[in-house]
Amino acid sequence: MSQVPGLSGKANWGASMLAPKVRRNATVDSAVSPVERLLALVSADMRATDALIHERLGSTVALIPDLARHLIDSGGKRLRPLLTLAAARMGGYDGASHVRLAAAVEFIHTATLLHDDVVDESSLRRGKVSANIVWGNKPSVLVGDYLFSRAFQLMVETGELAVLDILAGASAIIAEGEVMQLKSANNLAATEEHYLSVVRAKTAALFSAAAEAGATLARRSADYVEALRRYGDNLGIAFQLVDDALDYSGRQALMGKSVGDDFREGKVTLPVILAHARADEAARHFWKRTIETGPQGERDLDTAITLVEKTGAISETMARARAYADEARQALASVEPCETRDVLADIADFCIERAY
Amino acid sequence: MSQVPGLSGKANWGASMLAPKVRRNATVDSAVSPVERLLALVSADMRATDALIHERLGSTVALIPDLARHLIDSGGKRLRPLLTLAAARMGGYDGASHVRLAAAVEFIHTATLLHDDVVDESSLRRGKVSANIVWGNKPSVLVGDYLFSRAFQLMVETGELAVLDILAGASAIIAEGEVMQLKSANNLAATEEHYLSVVRAKTAALFSAAAEAGATLARRSADYVEALRRYGDNLGIAFQLVDDALDYSGRQALMGKSVGDDFREGKVTLPVILAHARADEAARHFWKRTIETGPQGERDLDTAITLVEKTGAISETMARARAYADEARQALASVEPCETRDVLADIADFCIERAY
Repeated sequence: MSQVPGLSGKANWGASMLAPKVRRNATVDSAVSPVERLLALVSADMRATDALIHERLGSTVALIPDLARHLIDSGGKRLRPLLTLAAARMGGYDGASHVRLAAAVEFIHTATLLHDDVVDESSLRRGKVSANIVWGNKPSVLVGDYLFSRAFQLMVETGELAVLDILAGASAIIAEGEVMQLKSANNLAATEEHYLSVVRAKTAALFSAAAEAGATLARRSADYVEALRRYGDNLGIAFQLVDDALDYSGRQALMGKSVGDDFREGKVTLPVILAHARADEAARHFWKRTIETGPQGERDLDTAITLVEKTGAISETMARARAYADEARQALASVEPCETRDVLADIADFCIERAY
Repeated sequence: MSQVPGLSGKANWGASMLAPKVRRNATVDSAVSPVERLLALVSADMRATDALIHERLGSTVALIPDLARHLIDSGGKRLRPLLTLAAARMGGYDGASHVRLAAAVEFIHTATLLHDDVVDESSLRRGKVSANIVWGNKPSVLVGDYLFSRAFQLMVETGELAVLDILAGASAIIAEGEVMQLKSANNLAATEEHYLSVVRAKTAALFSAAAEAGATLARRSADYVEALRRYGDNLGIAFQLVDDALDYSGRQALMGKSVGDDFREGKVTLPVILAHARADEAARHFWKRTIETGPQGERDLDTAITLVEKTGAISETMARARAYADEARQALASVEPCETRDVLADIADFCIERAY
C-alpha cells in the first residue's frame, strides 16, 4: 500500500522525498517540498529532537539501540514530530518541552512500525530489510515495548498531563485500528465505512495527536488546539488514502518503486473495495481468488492494477484524498496567518500531488 | 520455570492457591494463605479494581475484550495490584486513585504476559490454552499494546505524575529484562550476575513499582516509599527464584503440575547455572546438548531434575530465595506495625514455603 517497498499498512513518505538527515542551514525556498520548508522553519528544534531520540533509545542492553537505530535512522521523514514542533511554535510556545514531546511521538510511531512489521510479516521497511527479519520477531516486539515506555517517560518529563492524555488515548486507538484491520484482511465484505475507521485509527490518530499535543503545549485557545487536531486528522486520512492508491499505481511501478504490497497481503483497501463493487462477474471471481482464497499468480498484480484503473477506483480514491486534504487546509483557516501555517497547508496539497 | 503449565518466564502463583474471583465477605483467618488475608484486608478496593479492569478493557472492537478477558479472567492472583492497594492504604491513603493505579498495574502485567507468550511461543498460560494459540500472535501483540495504552490512560486520570514516572520506568526496565533474557537463552556461558539482572528487570521491577507507586499516593515520608519499593523488589526476586527452582521440582511433577518449561525452552536459569558449574564431564555434555545444541530426548527432563537435585543447585537456589524473602520482610521493619504490614511480611515467607 505504499510507495516504499514493504511499507505495509501505515502511510509514510518515500526516502527520496526528503534527505534522511536534518539539513543544516536549510533555507526556506519555495522550490523545495513543503515538508523541507517546514523542517527549515523548525530546524534547530528538530536537531534537538533528533539528538534526544538518539540519547533516549540508549540502553545497556546493546541489542535495543542497535535494533531501534536500524529503523530510526532509516530515512523516515519525522513528519509526526515535525507537526508537534510546528504546532507548538506556531502557537507561540517558547519552552523546551516540545522537543521531548516530539521525540515521544517519534518513539510511539517507531514502536508501532516495529509491531506492524511483526504482525504483517513484512520483510522490507523504508527500502531496508526490516528489523523483524534481521533480528527476529521477538526482539522487535520487545524493543517496540521499550520505545513505547521511553515515550511515556519523555512525556512524564514534560509534566503536562494533558499531553499524556492525548497520546495515551491515541496509542489505544492505534492498537484498536490495527486489530480492526486484521478483521478485514482477506475479506471483500469489508465496507468503505470499516476501511475509513481503520485508516482514521491506525494512521490519522497519531497525526492528529502529534499536532494536538504540540498545540496544547502553547496554552492557546481551545479553538487553536481543535484546529490543529482537525488538521492532523484530515491530513492523516488523506495521506493513507494516497498511499493506498499508490500501491496500485502503474506509474509508481515505472518509477521503480514497490507496488502491490497490500494486494499480496490481501488487504482490503479502498481501491479494492471500489473496484470490487464495480466489477463484472469475471472480475469478481478474480478478486475473490486473489484477495480471499488464493493462490495469487505472477500476473495477478498487473490484472489488479488494470482493474482498479479501469473501474475508476484509483481516481475516486484520489478524489476522496483530495477532499480530506482540502479539509486539512480548511482547518487552519482560523489560525493567525504566518509562514508556518501556510507551509502546513501546502503539505496537505503536497500529500496529494506526490501521487501524480 | 513455573508451577503452572506454560507459565514461561515470569513468576506467578498457581490458580490453586487462591480462588480466582475476589471472595466476598472473606474473613481474616490465619489458616488461610497470607495472600488471601491481604485480599480480605483490601477486599472492597480489589472489587472496585476488578470492576474497573473489566470496564476499561472494553472496546468496540470485540476481539480486544474477548482476548483480554481470556487472560485477565484466567485465575491470576492480582498480586501486583494487591501490593499497590495495600501500600496505599497502609500509608493512610483515603482517596480513590489507588484503584485506578492498581488496574493500570494489572494491565501492564497482562500486556507483558501477552507479549511474553508470543516471544516464548508458549501454548499454555495459567493452565489454559494461551491467547497466542487461540487467536494467533498478531492480535496478542496488538491487544498487549492496547492494554499498555489503557494502563497509561488510567494513570493519567490519577493526575499523579510521580506514579506515571515510576511505572513508565518499570515498563522500560521490564522490556530490557526480556531482551536480556533472549540473549542468555541456550547459552550456558550466562553468568549468575546476568541471570540476576534479568530476574530483577523482568519480574522484580513491576513488583517494586506496584508497591512504590501505591506508597507514593499516600504522601508519606520518602522512607515509607523506599521501604515499600525495597519490599517489592526483594519479594519479586524471591518469587522468581522459587519459580525457577519449581520448574525442576520432582515434587511439583508428582502434584500433577507442569515442570520443565524452562528446560524445554533452553532457558539458563539459576538451577542450570549452578548445576552446570558443578557438573562432571558427562553432565557438562548433557547440559550442552540439552540447553545449547539440542536435540532433547524424552528422558532428558528426568535426568536434568536428578542433576539439579544431586548437585545441590535446587537447595542453593531456594537458600538464595530465602535470603531475598528475609530482605523483603526486613524492608518493612521501618513501617509502623499494623495488620497489613504483618501480612505483607508473611507473604514473603509464604513465597518460599509454597515450594515445600
